[in-house]
Amino acid sequence: MSKPFIMSVDAMGGDNAPDIVINGLEYYLKTQGAEHDVRFLIHGDEQAISNLLDKAPLTKARSDVLHTDKEISMDAKPSHAVRRGKDSSMWNAVEAVKEGKAAVALSAGNTGALMGISLVQLRTMIGVQRPAIAAIWPQPEGMCVMLDMGANVDCNASHLTEFAVMGEAYYRALYHKDKPSIGLLNVGTEELKGNATINMAHERLQNSKLGLNYRGYVEGNDISFGDVDVIVTDGFTGNIALKTAEGTAKLVGHYLKASVQESLWSKFTSMLNYVGFKRLKKRLDPRRANGGVFLGLNGVVIKSHGGTDAIGFANAVSIGVELAEFDFLNEVEGALNALHDEDEDIGFVA
Amino acid sequence: MSKPFIMSVDAMGGDNAPDIVINGLEYYLKTQGAEHDVRFLIHGDEQAISNLLDKAPLTKARSDVLHTDKEISMDAKPSHAVRRGKDSSMWNAVEAVKEGKAAVALSAGNTGALMGISLVQLRTMIGVQRPAIAAIWPQPEGMCVMLDMGANVDCNASHLTEFAVMGEAYYRALYHKDKPSIGLLNVGTEELKGNATINMAHERLQNSKLGLNYRGYVEGNDISFGDVDVIVTDGFTGNIALKTAEGTAKLVGHYLKASVQESLWSKFTSMLNYVGFKRLKKRLDPRRANGGVFLGLNGVVIKSHGGTDAIGFANAVSIGVELAEFDFLNEVEGALNALHDEDEDIGFVA
Repeated sequence: MSKPFIMSVDAMGGDNAPDIVINGLEYYLKTQGAEHDVRFLIHGDEQAISNLLDKAPLTKARSDVLHTDKEISMDAKPSHAVRRGKDSSMWNAVEAVKEGKAAVALSAGNTGALMGISLVQLRTMIGVQRPAIAAIWPQPEGMCVMLDMGANVDCNASHLTEFAVMGEAYYRALYHKDKPSIGLLNVGTEELKGNATINMAHERLQNSKLGLNYRGYVEGNDISFGDVDVIVTDGFTGNIALKTAEGTAKLVGHYLKASVQESLWSKFTSMLNYVGFKRLKKRLDPRRANGGVFLGLNGVVIKSHGGTDAIGFANAVSIGVELAEFDFLNEVEGALNALHDEDEDIGFVA
Repeated sequence: MSKPFIMSVDAMGGDNAPDIVINGLEYYLKTQGAEHDVRFLIHGDEQAISNLLDKAPLTKARSDVLHTDKEISMDAKPSHAVRRGKDSSMWNAVEAVKEGKAAVALSAGNTGALMGISLVQLRTMIGVQRPAIAAIWPQPEGMCVMLDMGANVDCNASHLTEFAVMGEAYYRALYHKDKPSIGLLNVGTEELKGNATINMAHERLQNSKLGLNYRGYVEGNDISFGDVDVIVTDGFTGNIALKTAEGTAKLVGHYLKASVQESLWSKFTSMLNYVGFKRLKKRLDPRRANGGVFLGLNGVVIKSHGGTDAIGFANAVSIGVELAEFDFLNEVEGALNALHDEDEDIGFVA
């Protein structure tokens, strides 16, 4: 058992909330609960939650429920959620972190609203201009971390270098690797090596004396099939890359399905190869990569995909547990302070 | 038989040139030559080409060879290729288009060098600031066209609207569809709908009276799995998206292979499902999407992937044939003129 802590959970966020939330917590505790001393502070409709907890004994034994009948809809505008969201389950989940009642907050609700509410309550760390969203991304062996996935459409070189140190700390926390490697996403067309912003961030990271394992530029194909642990890009490119990969995986799946269904014979042989297909499906399971984290805030907030199920939600819970146990917030703060000190020493202005 | 024309071919570009080039021409003529009255002007080492032509009778009957012993290496810097590339096979292939001796030029050589040499010889069309590279991209049914794939790292709104009309003309030429739909690649995070450049291009296209079938914003997942025919983005994002998709497809292929190889039983059943796998492999075949086109120049230049084989090269040949027969250059020029006239009428300045 590692150190005890509390996770604050928005029970009402996500397409199938609160069911997938409570079932996700239960799945987490069933599979990994024995090694982790986590308790849950669950925010939302008490009646609905209690009914679900009656069928989720492990979660019931480790939870306190705080009632609110207000919730943020999945299509709420972020600015509206920030202005009118007070006392909602999402708001209260984040507030518990702000007030020190929980180490981590978790929601499967609307991303923009969660970012807005987290930003207004937790504020950014000193020196950080805007928070970033980091995601995990499957590779042949293990995962890489990529950021920003959409919080910052326009980024300057200083944002990118902050993403690098925050992402590096995130990778260390999740995978306990001492010196994760960092790459800056760029295009590789000979002399046209990216734009001025990227070149500036590249030079800054390359010349840093902070001991980062910076590997230089990487290209789009290195995200899924490279050997760099942390991939840094602006939120526009990160979001496009993520969704492009989703679409491509879907296309390949579509082809695969079509190939199998086209003849009775291939249907039959695929049935025989059920184990192989099951293994493939497991590897391609998007739930394995569920759970993004907001970086650069004075508090840890985890965002689960809104459309995930209990198993996917449990994966987001496990990310929150890793971060809480790693004392992630201090780690990020230390890394950012070191970067900003060096920025000052060398007079770096983006 | 449709109208006769000449294609100018750089025989020395590509990883396995001139073999894949001559074999690619032969494969094209064998499979599609009967319907198209194309002749080839082949530039490169006459001895090597002649030896290959002896084993490629269809191509030999339709070709003239112009000797040069100079060639551009696959890793040449574009600026170097432009300054020192005169009389090379790539240079001569493009020059034939400039001098009106050929309707289309085709090379599997270094992209940056080919773009530089094309730009310096053919120049951009009046009003176009920089040419773009358009690629075809597989979707569940058919293909979409995406541009720019890397020629322009920084784009303004006027570049993007030019890409839209050029890409639309390209799609019409390739697939003979009357009103292909156009989408502008963006992120979909509620209020953060892209940056100022994209918003400006969006408004310009939305308010245009040119009769374009403009569908508005699309997201990364719509490239592989959407229903828009032409996807417009800047060269940085386009290049990252293309390579991200390549990496993802490779990752899925890796998982698939691993799933099949993990047990004797699944190896055996996959062998039984050989036909299904073959069909899948064919659908995923990157050669199907080989061949990019440079748009916005006073001449049509096709770029084949450098690492492709004869079948992939034949696909690039067939793109060139479609464009020559469609009288593509006039089509693009007309579309751009209409756009620029409207720009002037409404006082559009990016």
